[in-house]
Amino acid sequence: MRVRLLFPTPEVAAQAYLPLIYTACRTCYSELDPQEIFDRATDGRVTPEKQQELVRKVIESGHGSTIEHIVFTFAISGVTRTLSHQLVRHRAGLAFDQQSQRYLKYREPAYMVPGSIADADPELRERFTDALDDSLAFYGELLEAGIPGEDARFVMPNATRTNLVMTANLRALIHMSGLRLCTMAQWEIRRLFQLIRHEVFTVSPFLGAFLAPKCVPLGYCDEDRNRDEHCPIRPHKDSVLGAWSEKRAAAKAAGRDLPVR
Amino acid sequence: MRVRLLFPTPEVAAQAYLPLIYTACRTCYSELDPQEIFDRATDGRVTPEKQQELVRKVIESGHGSTIEHIVFTFAISGVTRTLSHQLVRHRAGLAFDQQSQRYLKYREPAYMVPGSIADADPELRERFTDALDDSLAFYGELLEAGIPGEDARFVMPNATRTNLVMTANLRALIHMSGLRLCTMAQWEIRRLFQLIRHEVFTVSPFLGAFLAPKCVPLGYCDEDRNRDEHCPIRPHKDSVLGAWSEKRAAAKAAGRDLPVR
Amino acid sequence: MRVRLLFPTPEVAAQAYLPLIYTACRTCYSELDPQEIFDRATDGRVTPEKQQELVRKVIESGHGSTIEHIVFTFAISGVTRTLSHQLVRHRAGLAFDQQSQRYLKYREPAYMVPGSIADADPELRERFTDALDDSLAFYGELLEAGIPGEDARFVMPNATRTNLVMTANLRALIHMSGLRLCTMAQWEIRRLFQLIRHEVFTVSPFLGAFLAPKCVPLGYCDEDRNRDEHCPIRPHKDSVLGAWSEKRAAAKAAGRDLPVR
Amino acid sequence: MRVRLLFPTPEVAAQAYLPLIYTACRTCYSELDPQEIFDRATDGRVTPEKQQELVRKVIESGHGSTIEHIVFTFAISGVTRTLSHQLVRHRAGLAFDQQSQRYLKYREPAYMVPGSIADADPELRERFTDALDDSLAFYGELLEAGIPGEDARFVMPNATRTNLVMTANLRALIHMSGLRLCTMAQWEIRRLFQLIRHEVFTVSPFLGAFLAPKCVPLGYCDEDRNRDEHCPIRPHKDSVLGAWSEKRAAAKAAGRDLPVR
Repeated sequence: MRVRLLFPTPEVAAQAYLPLIYTACRTCYSELDPQEIFDRATDGRVTPEKQQELVRKVIESGHGSTIEHIVFTFAISGVTRTLSHQLVRHRAGLAFDQQSQRYLKYREPAYMVPGSIADADPELRERFTDALDDSLAFYGELLEAGIPGEDARFVMPNATRTNLVMTANLRALIHMSGLRLCTMAQWEIRRLFQLIRHEVFTVSPFLGAFLAPKCVPLGYCDEDRNRDEHCPIRPHKDSVLGAWSEKRAAAKAAGRDLPVR
Repeated sequence: MRVRLLFPTPEVAAQAYLPLIYTACRTCYSELDPQEIFDRATDGRVTPEKQQELVRKVIESGHGSTIEHIVFTFAISGVTRTLSHQLVRHRAGLAFDQQSQRYLKYREPAYMVPGSIADADPELRERFTDALDDSLAFYGELLEAGIPGEDARFVMPNATRTNLVMTANLRALIHMSGLRLCTMAQWEIRRLFQLIRHEVFTVSPFLGAFLAPKCVPLGYCDEDRNRDEHCPIRPHKDSVLGAWSEKRAAAKAAGRDLPVR
Repeated sequence: MRVRLLFPTPEVAAQAYLPLIYTACRTCYSELDPQEIFDRATDGRVTPEKQQELVRKVIESGHGSTIEHIVFTFAISGVTRTLSHQLVRHRAGLAFDQQSQRYLKYREPAYMVPGSIADADPELRERFTDALDDSLAFYGELLEAGIPGEDARFVMPNATRTNLVMTANLRALIHMSGLRLCTMAQWEIRRLFQLIRHEVFTVSPFLGAFLAPKCVPLGYCDEDRNRDEHCPIRPHKDSVLGAWSEKRAAAKAAGRDLPVR
Repeated sequence: MRVRLLFPTPEVAAQAYLPLIYTACRTCYSELDPQEIFDRATDGRVTPEKQQELVRKVIESGHGSTIEHIVFTFAISGVTRTLSHQLVRHRAGLAFDQQSQRYLKYREPAYMVPGSIADADPELRERFTDALDDSLAFYGELLEAGIPGEDARFVMPNATRTNLVMTANLRALIHMSGLRLCTMAQWEIRRLFQLIRHEVFTVSPFLGAFLAPKCVPLGYCDEDRNRDEHCPIRPHKDSVLGAWSEKRAAAKAAGRDLPVR
């Protein structure tokens, strides 16, 4: 699996992306023309620090439209069709173009071996790679026998590698990262979003820092607590709400009232 | 492949769906309260014929929001993962829930044989079914060997059957049918939309009639004309626009002006 | 302001809506055909209680696609253009059709008086109603003078009443209610969602109960705590997370470890 | 009304936008890694002419996802609330942030005079400007009297000017231009899209050329032909399809068959 951020470059991110979000935020509350707000942000009259301060506050408050104005385009290659089928279920703020198994006749189809197989006993591992090699070889034979590509692909396994171009606005990236960076996400798509986060971080540490599992902004884990084990990133929702209940009960017992604020 | 319309029933379609679209259309142009418009449509003060007349005009004019108010829910079973990957790329006005190859451990996985293989020479056909039987048997062995379902599925072929529940509003249905009923659509998804069209037609011939390949409302085919053969449903765009050009040229040569209308 | 649920009727909601969500949920984890799942839900083999149990769990877990399959259509009348401009900013899972100030020439335009004006001193209140009466009278004069409706409406105030037909799937309804039932929402749109909640509750108490301000599922208020006053529905996020921190600190000081679960 | 393209700059458009669409198109049909495709497009191994050739073909074929990868952000100022209410109804591929009449207390609210009033007799024109001046002055008085901004705005007329930041991907821009550049569109929103088209054209004549009224790609006008007059951009659909019917009838009468292609 490889991920590369095709757009923006670090220069574009530095010069335009922060001012764009800042302009979207400020326009809502200002009589100034958005053109004037943008110019002040790009010529230094409003410092990047001041812009970041507002943008951070707005992102943390969940005012989502303001972070739909900037987009990131990724080249994603070598992921499985299992991942891509899952990935394209995300809809809002996204564009996908994917290698077509219908139109493209693969000369060198490839596949991925999951860790649980790679670490299995050697015999099983070998049977796995043999089976997948056979499937992809048979795909080639079907093409040679004149079966159309759109039907020959029926024998291709889920493990078959594919490529995509994905564009996502910042809101979509934060939303997807919230779900897919969770330790309970499927391993391949979690790996994808670790790479995506790394790419965004490289062009903008400020923006990249917002790509985090959902428990980070929430302050607690809201996944099913009855799973085998709980990851240590954040405590479970029930524990956190329980601590508040205990505190309130103790206050009441002591004849005090907790301010709701 | 099986398709059944779970919702609406013929009764619901008859009693509510036409009045709902009619109410959406009329509300735009009327000082009447939408509640009053709806009551007049359901108690017969506005006849179904009169409602159909307005609704037909509005659909043909492309005023799309009015037909986003009614939805159809389909049980779709036995389609391939090839189809489902393609189907879920449609986004607007749709909801999908699909059998999870991650969470579900299949005891009886099944697959589909495409027509080009079924009609191929018996030896190739047998090799195809053997290969797919082997893949699905190996999937079962991987599960038994303790490989998690989310990794065992890596050997499942594209031909593996899956089930979905799909809800689409009428606008989405008409849009998708426009693309997928085209004779150039991939055969499996075209078959799916033939069945979908049949189901809608059964509860409402009036609404079902709007599910048609896109060349029907357009009046011409706008697909690439350099394909091997052209289907006979509608003439190609270039032919149609060419006929107009010839007519106008002839008129000019005769010293007449064609009205643009 | 008036709101009426045009669709579904209580009968449709009772007979189809719960089974539809249940079928969407179950299909993800079952080898059964969705048609069979639906039939078992509608003929009583799976009791409504059992269906509700699964659906509640799924909604609370945030598995949103399953509740996009059922929709609610509302007739909304007598709201201001201020509200409608705000309302139509919601996009996902929604359809709107609204009275057109462009095409409709109002014979009896009306407006709404906000509470702060109604409760103001009588002189100000009278100036307010006079001003709005004048604006709408002038609108009529412009029409009579032959100014097109699309330009005459330029004098209509924000307070002018308008009608809409709105269809929303359950996910969109829950999302919008989360924002708009908050005590910090603007009063008119909050009132609208109280009426919407009432209408849904009437056809399905089970589903209506999910329409709540966002602090209810979150367990805390995540709005800006620096507002003048905090409503008593839920404590603020900072207070809740603070209680957990205190509890953990106390445990550490006592040499104990709090389980993250 | 003022429109300025805030993003991309001409340099960014030239260096990245064409290669991004090209990479999205090519990825569908190539075994090459999208990173490699992009590098070949940006380092000149694939010439801009060759890229444009593919992109033009793909846009004309309606393969819409490929042009969702690039976005344009506009500062829009001085438009009426009438326009903004209409504009934000567009949903797909768009982000809006607009001056809030709820949170912003305008010190210098302004309004627009439509052409039909500006050209009306001087007395009517003066009454119009007096009425709007009065409304906006009364808004200021309400604020001074302590009425909250969110209620004082109820007296603001539709003609009140507002500002927005709008981001649209190329697909959304082409779609909206198709509707809003039509001579039958409302004059203010048509003017807006003429300015938008001009801005896009300035940074990329190649891409700007795709922003056109929908009749241009269709080859005919599909609006209601019963309007008073028809614009001369394209002939009406009925005329064009009629010319084909006549040609076919003539061929049949002459014992010839017209090829459907």
